[in-house]
Amino acid sequence: MGRWEPNARDRLAQAAMTLFQEHGYDRTTVQDIAARAGLTERTFFRYFTDKKEVLFGGSELLNERIVTTITEAPPGTAPLDAVAAALEAMAPFFKDRRDHSRARQALLAAHAELRERELIKLASMASAAAETLRKRGVTEPTASLAAEAGIAVFKVAFERWLEDPKAQDYSRHLQLGLDELRALTASTGTEGPDAPPPRPARPVRARKP
Amino acid sequence: MGRWEPNARDRLAQAAMTLFQEHGYDRTTVQDIAARAGLTERTFFRYFTDKKEVLFGGSELLNERIVTTITEAPPGTAPLDAVAAALEAMAPFFKDRRDHSRARQALLAAHAELRERELIKLASMASAAAETLRKRGVTEPTASLAAEAGIAVFKVAFERWLEDPKAQDYSRHLQLGLDELRALTASTGTEGPDAPPPRPARPVRARKP
Repeated sequence: MGRWEPNARDRLAQAAMTLFQEHGYDRTTVQDIAARAGLTERTFFRYFTDKKEVLFGGSELLNERIVTTITEAPPGTAPLDAVAAALEAMAPFFKDRRDHSRARQALLAAHAELRERELIKLASMASAAAETLRKRGVTEPTASLAAEAGIAVFKVAFERWLEDPKAQDYSRHLQLGLDELRALTASTGTEGPDAPPPRPARPVRARKP
Repeated sequence: MGRWEPNARDRLAQAAMTLFQEHGYDRTTVQDIAARAGLTERTFFRYFTDKKEVLFGGSELLNERIVTTITEAPPGTAPLDAVAAALEAMAPFFKDRRDHSRARQALLAAHAELRERELIKLASMASAAAETLRKRGVTEPTASLAAEAGIAVFKVAFERWLEDPKAQDYSRHLQLGLDELRALTASTGTEGPDAPPPRPARPVRARKP
């Protein structure tokens, strides 16, 4: 066992991001990252399996937060509300991390293997949410659909947050996404006989000439 | 140029699926597949880049169908209705293919690399739908959200179709999924002042003891 290094994980993550931006993702090695963080490669591999995983190190924490939040939602909470609460509970992870997240997103845009890894992360968040809903007694397809629709909102809201010129926070974009999902579904399709009167249709807007 | 082989693509796809089931995915080679189909490896590589792609050969056709259907939706079609029409327009691809699709799904369940490739396929379907909506003048985040929510419904409906002991068809499961998405969003959250009265909440059902 090496000696304990304070904040080793954060130092490695920060060093990696700096090097990815300075020298490019492809040309950065684990050796470079460890050296920049003032740590050994052995310490690196205690926290991450490879350099790609540095960009996804928070996935497990996010999944844990999803599971905890949905589990602890008050009895009777509607499934999509429980998922929305879980997505809202992630806000602290993103607070003051917009620059970091934007840099990360730029790396994803440039590397297909990172985008693929991100898809796996999102799918695992959806699986965690659906599984936790089922443990609360939510039946299928409701559990999977609430989870997948919630992650769809998260994905869009997260990207909007990163791109927002007004820099409104993640929670605000999440709320806007959930409202938009409700508006989208309310304005569509034919419903059963017990459905409420439809809201006014939201037609496809014509592009201004 | 080799001579023209009738239905080469289908013959290769069928040979591959048979071999994957008989000998396992890992132990089947491109050479095996070509031989079983009575074709050359050269012909195989005219259609597929590797054996994995045999299972995803229809992706481009699905994306083309999505683009065409959304493009041709009548003016004023609500965004989610346009996406729903695109998902419904895929039904002919799945007709009489339930056994094939179930065998394919079993392979995905057993191989992480195939599940990852499936996630990429789904993401590319969502991108195609969002891009086509934007070309119709649908603004963001509505376009991305309608596309992602639609693909969420597709994913769940497709799995339900494969698992359905009553063997109801894909279109039926798609419709049930869309209805369920509407019910999920209608029963949730706080809405703006111009929102209609909420439908009765759908509480998380207690599991029977």
